[in-house]
Amino acid sequence: MEQNETIHTIMRHASLRSFSDLKLTRNQVETLVRAAQAAASSNFFQAYSIIDITDPELLHKLAKLCGDQPFIAKGARFFVFCADMARNEHIAANAGSDVSESVSGADAFLVASVDVALAAQNMMLAAESMGLGGCYIGGLRESVSEISDLLDIPDHVYPVFGLVLGYPAETSRGGEIKPRLPLNAIYSENRYVPAVDQTLNDYNDEMQRYYERRNPEAEHPHCSWAQGVARSLVTHPRNFMLAFLQERGWLRH
Amino acid sequence: MEQNETIHTIMRHASLRSFSDLKLTRNQVETLVRAAQAAASSNFFQAYSIIDITDPELLHKLAKLCGDQPFIAKGARFFVFCADMARNEHIAANAGSDVSESVSGADAFLVASVDVALAAQNMMLAAESMGLGGCYIGGLRESVSEISDLLDIPDHVYPVFGLVLGYPAETSRGGEIKPRLPLNAIYSENRYVPAVDQTLNDYNDEMQRYYERRNPEAEHPHCSWAQGVARSLVTHPRNFMLAFLQERGWLRH
Repeated sequence: MEQNETIHTIMRHASLRSFSDLKLTRNQVETLVRAAQAAASSNFFQAYSIIDITDPELLHKLAKLCGDQPFIAKGARFFVFCADMARNEHIAANAGSDVSESVSGADAFLVASVDVALAAQNMMLAAESMGLGGCYIGGLRESVSEISDLLDIPDHVYPVFGLVLGYPAETSRGGEIKPRLPLNAIYSENRYVPAVDQTLNDYNDEMQRYYERRNPEAEHPHCSWAQGVARSLVTHPRNFMLAFLQERGWLRH
Repeated sequence: MEQNETIHTIMRHASLRSFSDLKLTRNQVETLVRAAQAAASSNFFQAYSIIDITDPELLHKLAKLCGDQPFIAKGARFFVFCADMARNEHIAANAGSDVSESVSGADAFLVASVDVALAAQNMMLAAESMGLGGCYIGGLRESVSEISDLLDIPDHVYPVFGLVLGYPAETSRGGEIKPRLPLNAIYSENRYVPAVDQTLNDYNDEMQRYYERRNPEAEHPHCSWAQGVARSLVTHPRNFMLAFLQERGWLRH
């Protein structure tokens, strides 16, 4: 492996959900947001907005709405990352063009959703390089409609995920890094090559050992990694998402 | 601004489209893919696959299909990043669960599309920290169906974007970093606050000065940044995307 400080920051990522009481300075928050903004953006649309939840009461309400995850309110900062085509629609309207048709299509949805993810990953890495840790909160979509209303989010904008950041609690286990799928299960040359079962089974065993090391009392006592994947897919289908998105002006065609 | 090497890597990002002939070692490619894999992943689904285009003939074909962008074939490496729920569907099936319904929903589409973007941004930053540069290729979706066929991409997998990477050409201008929207145009506290027109107009002027500096012969002689946004949205609607995605088992409900 090549090594440098950036690659080191990238490779040591582990989700953090247990935070100290240390807060962030205004300067640190600005650094994080500017780092997010430095990401590439399709057509330079910068098709995202970031809502920083600084009101403690609102934060507790959101922690509840994000699938009841109280640790969200215990971080130093909680950002709601929104895909945003409303700003570009407004900019285009000011320049004399009606783009409402374009921004309601599937590709615009994708462009904005990717833009916001690239920006968020920059913020995550900047935070981790500053000694912070954190966790993406996809659980925000459990209450996507209520949260959109609560945060005055207009049409052609939607909250994609949250990002909770903070300093590790002293009691935090300092996260052993989760083993990833073997490289040849996700990487191939010149054509898509499905992962072979032997590779997936070996990885299942590796994950079993990882879970046992991390928690000898067994986080998934009756459930392998593969069963966990199946269970997660079945448990959180969020079948309301398409109707919600279409109602808010996305994915209409 | 806080400063460290990772933040420096993040902040100096500029798209690179002009490459030297230097190639990458096997070890470098492995570092890049492992960096991608280190990103967070929703439910740890790792819902992406990376196809490395090493066949020169295929590469030229793809450069053509990605909206005819010959520079793609001149980089040291071109990766096709795919959102991939097929692998998880297969893993779940092996564990005795049929999740075909779950993976064809809008939330699964979003989960996979975000996963792949987080992974790609890790690869981009790892590459930039190694002295490489590059550019996301959303133009890949101009021929999303042909490219999927060409690369044997199955249902519940789709190519989201490409990433071309390489060392800067000696003649490359070393990219002045593009000014981003003012922080208060994309960031707000506790609720979504639309950017005000004055802020957007001032930024339009700033971008005008940037374009003039970058290319005194004027890249957009008759077109402001705001007009460019409008034009890009109207020019590339990719109206075939929803039908394509649904045909491939995505966004069915």
